[in-house]
Amino acid sequence: MACPVRGAAAAVLLSALWAVVPGDKLLVVPQDGSHWLSMEQIVEALGARGHDIVVLVPEVNLLLKESRHYTRKTYAVPYDQEALRGRFRSFGQGHFAERSALTAALVEYRNNMRVVGMSFVNCQSLLSDAATLRFLRDSQFQVLFTDPAMPCGVILAEYLRLPSVYLFRGFPCSLEHAFSRSPNPVSYIPRCYTQFSDRMTFFQRVANFLVNPLENLVFYLLYSKYEDLAAHLLKREVHLPTLYQNGSVWLLRYDFVLEYPRPVLPNMVFIGGINCKKKGVLSQEFEAYVNASGEHGIVVFSLGSMVSEIPEKKAMDIADALGKIPQTVLWRYTGTRPPNLAKNTILVKWLPQNDLLGHPKTRAFITHSGSHGIYEGICNGVPMVMLPLFGDQMDNAKHMETRGAGVSLNVLEMTSEDLENALKAVIHDKSYKENIMRLSSLHKDRPIEPLDLAVFWVEFVMRHKGAPHLRPAAHDLTWYQYHSLDVIGFLLAVVLGVTFIVYKSCVFGCRKCFGKKKRVKKSNKSKAH
Amino acid sequence: MACPVRGAAAAVLLSALWAVVPGDKLLVVPQDGSHWLSMEQIVEALGARGHDIVVLVPEVNLLLKESRHYTRKTYAVPYDQEALRGRFRSFGQGHFAERSALTAALVEYRNNMRVVGMSFVNCQSLLSDAATLRFLRDSQFQVLFTDPAMPCGVILAEYLRLPSVYLFRGFPCSLEHAFSRSPNPVSYIPRCYTQFSDRMTFFQRVANFLVNPLENLVFYLLYSKYEDLAAHLLKREVHLPTLYQNGSVWLLRYDFVLEYPRPVLPNMVFIGGINCKKKGVLSQEFEAYVNASGEHGIVVFSLGSMVSEIPEKKAMDIADALGKIPQTVLWRYTGTRPPNLAKNTILVKWLPQNDLLGHPKTRAFITHSGSHGIYEGICNGVPMVMLPLFGDQMDNAKHMETRGAGVSLNVLEMTSEDLENALKAVIHDKSYKENIMRLSSLHKDRPIEPLDLAVFWVEFVMRHKGAPHLRPAAHDLTWYQYHSLDVIGFLLAVVLGVTFIVYKSCVFGCRKCFGKKKRVKKSNKSKAH
Repeated sequence: MACPVRGAAAAVLLSALWAVVPGDKLLVVPQDGSHWLSMEQIVEALGARGHDIVVLVPEVNLLLKESRHYTRKTYAVPYDQEALRGRFRSFGQGHFAERSALTAALVEYRNNMRVVGMSFVNCQSLLSDAATLRFLRDSQFQVLFTDPAMPCGVILAEYLRLPSVYLFRGFPCSLEHAFSRSPNPVSYIPRCYTQFSDRMTFFQRVANFLVNPLENLVFYLLYSKYEDLAAHLLKREVHLPTLYQNGSVWLLRYDFVLEYPRPVLPNMVFIGGINCKKKGVLSQEFEAYVNASGEHGIVVFSLGSMVSEIPEKKAMDIADALGKIPQTVLWRYTGTRPPNLAKNTILVKWLPQNDLLGHPKTRAFITHSGSHGIYEGICNGVPMVMLPLFGDQMDNAKHMETRGAGVSLNVLEMTSEDLENALKAVIHDKSYKENIMRLSSLHKDRPIEPLDLAVFWVEFVMRHKGAPHLRPAAHDLTWYQYHSLDVIGFLLAVVLGVTFIVYKSCVFGCRKCFGKKKRVKKSNKSKAH
Repeated sequence: MACPVRGAAAAVLLSALWAVVPGDKLLVVPQDGSHWLSMEQIVEALGARGHDIVVLVPEVNLLLKESRHYTRKTYAVPYDQEALRGRFRSFGQGHFAERSALTAALVEYRNNMRVVGMSFVNCQSLLSDAATLRFLRDSQFQVLFTDPAMPCGVILAEYLRLPSVYLFRGFPCSLEHAFSRSPNPVSYIPRCYTQFSDRMTFFQRVANFLVNPLENLVFYLLYSKYEDLAAHLLKREVHLPTLYQNGSVWLLRYDFVLEYPRPVLPNMVFIGGINCKKKGVLSQEFEAYVNASGEHGIVVFSLGSMVSEIPEKKAMDIADALGKIPQTVLWRYTGTRPPNLAKNTILVKWLPQNDLLGHPKTRAFITHSGSHGIYEGICNGVPMVMLPLFGDQMDNAKHMETRGAGVSLNVLEMTSEDLENALKAVIHDKSYKENIMRLSSLHKDRPIEPLDLAVFWVEFVMRHKGAPHLRPAAHDLTWYQYHSLDVIGFLLAVVLGVTFIVYKSCVFGCRKCFGKKKRVKKSNKSKAH
């Protein structure tokens, strides 16, 4: 079976061998929030390898803090720290807002726009900040490394004429495949929010087919405003998907134990699970909780860094369910303590999630199924109860449920019994543990660690000033050329033209022949008369 | 820039770390001839790592020799060594047969069938050899490793119910993409024998579109006979492309400095350049040739192991051109010495191609552009004059010419002057050297060596008994489901049905309304009368 020390040893060796060119200068344009967690690791590793790195951050932010491995360059934004926290707090609470089946999409869209709108304001501030833009122009960077979930970095790369490397989990609704012209067959690749698996029934395929064109709507809602911003900066009309195609290498936090296998392009590099660190030593506090849990072990529960409060009624339902299992539950929760909290449930403001998941006494993981959490669950082989809230979380939960590695619940509709039953199922039904262990062993069995791969490809683009040999010629075609519509039109025109000419020639020939005969007959007839 | 020692050191480390499960048993079903060159390396490496390997070979063969790292299991075939050599000799000579533009395809097809037909006879012999089949059934292999250019190994994997790993350069006409359902857009992926690049003019795209359906013909000509063979063995109807889809991992000798970037699937692993070994020390004989070449250096010339003789007229044309350059030419040639051979040209029966190409005095490489030779040219950064003869060689040559790394000539039509001019161009026009050096630096800059990657993935399939998490759900769909034709048909039927019902309802409604009025009017009229 896979050797756990292999990756680490290879990382040390490879790190030592990759040569850094003195004077390498890298510009990093990150996204704030959980997106930064993976990028931070890569940027730290690149900094430790001696690259000169500038990370461009809004002066008001959540997680984009200082480090000895890079320099921060801040730009002004028109809000303060309290406004930012308030925005994220209301975003977190918004997931629990009342909604009907009809209004669900609108409620979620409005809630997401609380954060998405803030990114737009940041980008607007940055791209109109003459001093910062001058600094960036004068700094002579070699490569731009960005999280392109929002396109500010992509626009900057074009403005500064820099080759770029992307790092992300994918766009909303997997628009990365539409943007990159990576084929996306609707027959086996489920579209976002459908919650279909890659094996669909006929009517699911019909629904998937009908939902497909909504991708354009998603693009329009999220990104069209950026086209105006880019046009203003670049002083020309801008087609955002074309700008996106300039990314030299796309580091995607994909792994096919989570993603459904699908066509990809050669400049896509898969580094899913990059956030899974080796298990560290638990602090005394958490070690004590785990040891005190006895034979039943523990359950780890976190809804991620974006959700700190839950409406009281829902929190009480959850607390009720947690009280009905014999395991000790460690619940990361900063909201008001539910009055019915049972003795087996310990509320903590923060928990060492990966280290706890790696403990042999951990029986289950209750998660909002954000990709970082899901990968930590996979790495450590812990079956999951998933309470997806927004974005890709619904799809992540569906994928893991399809693979038999957990149970997904609708957090708004679930009852206390649903959660209790789901927990008991993943803890006692051995198939969940077997499935997650199988996924874990597949996921961890790889020829090179994701962090090393990411560092390699950023440096590759620095060494070669891009990766044009990986850029498909598809990017130089219009949409109708790409789909050969002009060729099909031309061939149809030729076929119709030839048919018309042949038909007309036949008619003409027939007239000549039979018309003559007729006339001859007629004249014969008239003569006869 | 890339560190040349990195790969080797990583190989040593990774080799040491990968754990081998005792009792691993691997069945290898290779292709004879140049195809074996890369597979042999991987099989030797796997054998050296302690796997129990059986290589299944016809008792009469060219290159499938014994080794201490594997056991050979031979099966009887109905021809002897002389017949085999004769067949390959006439195959080599056949490339120079007279042909017109109209008959060229037929002449090449017939010539290729000399070798392809032999493979079929081998497969027929093997699959009707009850003793060998019994041995294979009883041997309890875990995985089958095969070159699937001819499908005997693929059929055996199904018969023995073994997970399989494929290794090859690709099928004729890149059928691997059709078989694996890896999308293959006709708008920028040139079809075989068109000699188009990935950037086509409108009329080239029209031609490419029209040539596309010929892939089915190629499949029929090459493989349909195997379907009968498989059906007989498996005692059921067999659809060969479906059998091919069972390959767990496809090790493709691709690298995107040679291939055009295109969509691929997650179970495709790229190990192009696996045959590029580190430069060894030249023997005294060749060292002497190189040293005696003076400031002008040498040109290396080989048309590969399959072509040992050339018609006298053509050989004299070539010898004439070689005599007009100041470089020393080392020509691997076993045919009759051309009478006009110049003093600067040395005929040898064999040459250490990779070591010579790696010598700093080598100025150019005249090659038939087989993939092994092309990759050695790329690894060592030597500009090429390419004389493609058959198979993928035309496409390889076109790709390298498109990248400005060499000149391609039609060996049948070229004159002595053409070859002389091409040689002078690649030696004196600096752009060729610059382009091949750029390709070389991109090609050699990789996070893991191809041989390590190949060994890793074969062992991965052994460890996990397959790689089902990389198998696209596309394989479970029929062709019309895959293209959503049933969904489109259904939706069209719904639209037409609804339109029809609405139309009929309207007509009915109109009749009810206006018909009544009319009747009322009529009756009024009649009353008025």
